[in-house]
Amino acid sequence: MKVFGLEEISAAAKPAVVFDAMRAALIAHAEGRTSVPAPMVLEFPQYAGDTHVKAGHIAGTPYFAVKVASTFGSVNNGLVLAVDATTGQPAAVLADEGKLTAWRTAAAGALITDAMTPSGIDEVAVLGTGEQALLQVLWLRELRPVNRVKVWGRRPEAVERLCAALAIEGVHATPDGLTGAPCVITTTAAREPLPLEAFWAAVHITGVGTDMPGKGELPHEVFARALVATDDHAQCLHHGDFGNAVRAGVINEDADISVGAVLRDGRPSGEHSRSVADLTGVGATDAGVAAAVLSQLVR
Amino acid sequence: MKVFGLEEISAAAKPAVVFDAMRAALIAHAEGRTSVPAPMVLEFPQYAGDTHVKAGHIAGTPYFAVKVASTFGSVNNGLVLAVDATTGQPAAVLADEGKLTAWRTAAAGALITDAMTPSGIDEVAVLGTGEQALLQVLWLRELRPVNRVKVWGRRPEAVERLCAALAIEGVHATPDGLTGAPCVITTTAAREPLPLEAFWAAVHITGVGTDMPGKGELPHEVFARALVATDDHAQCLHHGDFGNAVRAGVINEDADISVGAVLRDGRPSGEHSRSVADLTGVGATDAGVAAAVLSQLVR
Repeated sequence: MKVFGLEEISAAAKPAVVFDAMRAALIAHAEGRTSVPAPMVLEFPQYAGDTHVKAGHIAGTPYFAVKVASTFGSVNNGLVLAVDATTGQPAAVLADEGKLTAWRTAAAGALITDAMTPSGIDEVAVLGTGEQALLQVLWLRELRPVNRVKVWGRRPEAVERLCAALAIEGVHATPDGLTGAPCVITTTAAREPLPLEAFWAAVHITGVGTDMPGKGELPHEVFARALVATDDHAQCLHHGDFGNAVRAGVINEDADISVGAVLRDGRPSGEHSRSVADLTGVGATDAGVAAAVLSQLVR
Repeated sequence: MKVFGLEEISAAAKPAVVFDAMRAALIAHAEGRTSVPAPMVLEFPQYAGDTHVKAGHIAGTPYFAVKVASTFGSVNNGLVLAVDATTGQPAAVLADEGKLTAWRTAAAGALITDAMTPSGIDEVAVLGTGEQALLQVLWLRELRPVNRVKVWGRRPEAVERLCAALAIEGVHATPDGLTGAPCVITTTAAREPLPLEAFWAAVHITGVGTDMPGKGELPHEVFARALVATDDHAQCLHHGDFGNAVRAGVINEDADISVGAVLRDGRPSGEHSRSVADLTGVGATDAGVAAAVLSQLVR
């Protein structure tokens, strides 16, 4: 069994590789060609830690993946195990320190944000100031121009740090995220809805932060009469912002379409207040990305 | 991150180490001192394969474990990942090729068989002819005398092979398992109940084969008025032989006691037809055994 470290993985996991694998995996998932058991969560409250274990397989592909991704305080860690789907033999450990999860989340968010946000919109508000806040913008910029970013977060010093990090990457960023933008991306671990005012100008919203029961970052109101895309219907209903809005009575539980179908067919037309993409993270996409990166590594 | 191979693991995982870790883990689990998410199962019917992913943590211990255990055809494989429970950092991969699961299953079965079978009984019937059939006998023999083993299986050549393997280990074994014995151990992947006649003489039955929905090896009748011990109440109710018997109306769903309590306090007295131990495998015991073996390896 081979163990690949972060340096090798970083060199192999080019955005083009991750985008292609992610798009294919999300479409496969939408078409029922994946096998994805319900994820496991272990919580370590005394260390502000939680660990998610996800597994998945895309039918007909050579590997399935088992992923362990931990967040303790503000530190992400983890690895992805690729297992031969014809023999059950462990093929490789991708000791990615949680980076593959960060990149696939960034890729999924960027793909669906780009697919659902009308072309011509180049102003984005980012709520949250962590690693995903930066990555969502940078990966979206791989797909379309992003000329202005407005940042909001609870801690002013973190907002300042993100604006500076974006500036280094050549992105014009300002600390006025609360005034909103046509495209809003939320990347927090919030357990209470974010300020509603940040969403008034939103034509499209992508939420990537809510990934377990108890979390919830989008105000329920934003789902009212919205076009909603979920990366996994059952999972988003169970512990995504979509499910929170359903339980609040704002939207019907059968009102969503799949992210994969939007990526395959484009955004459907119709009368909606706005569009919302709810991403909770699907184990089959970990399998798809791990297999794509592994095939680069063993070339 | 360290990767330990099977040879090192075999040298470290002495029966005494595994028995101690397993007993402590089962008692901790019975006392609510463990954290065990529901396991994940992936199925690969075209390769006669299934993969179980289990995770668990014993409160206050330094590592949690994530285990991937596959059976494709008759071949077991897998590994155990030990993760630092204070930081989320992967500490070691125990590339055990599925052996730690085999040993911890053998240890759990032997511990509860020994604890529930009246002393003086040294005759065992083993139903099933795979690796666990052999291991259950050999590990039980570490705890008490086993002077006669009666073997039953669907394939005569497999029965003969197991009898020969037991003979090599100095155990007198004969191919007449269907006539039963006071102590019966079932180790099959059966989806239909095993022949009832094999259980008529049973004072105690330990079932280790039923570990996912759709499987079931014990005839429901053996649970009637029996003293039942389960390694995890919810899990055995969901996909153990205990649950199958409950759904058949043979026993109440609150009739079981925990294996850990029996190991801690001994077998309770009372009027019962027989005793039955239903083991489905608990992720916390993987954590306990992995931590114990890892502490031997890094000494």
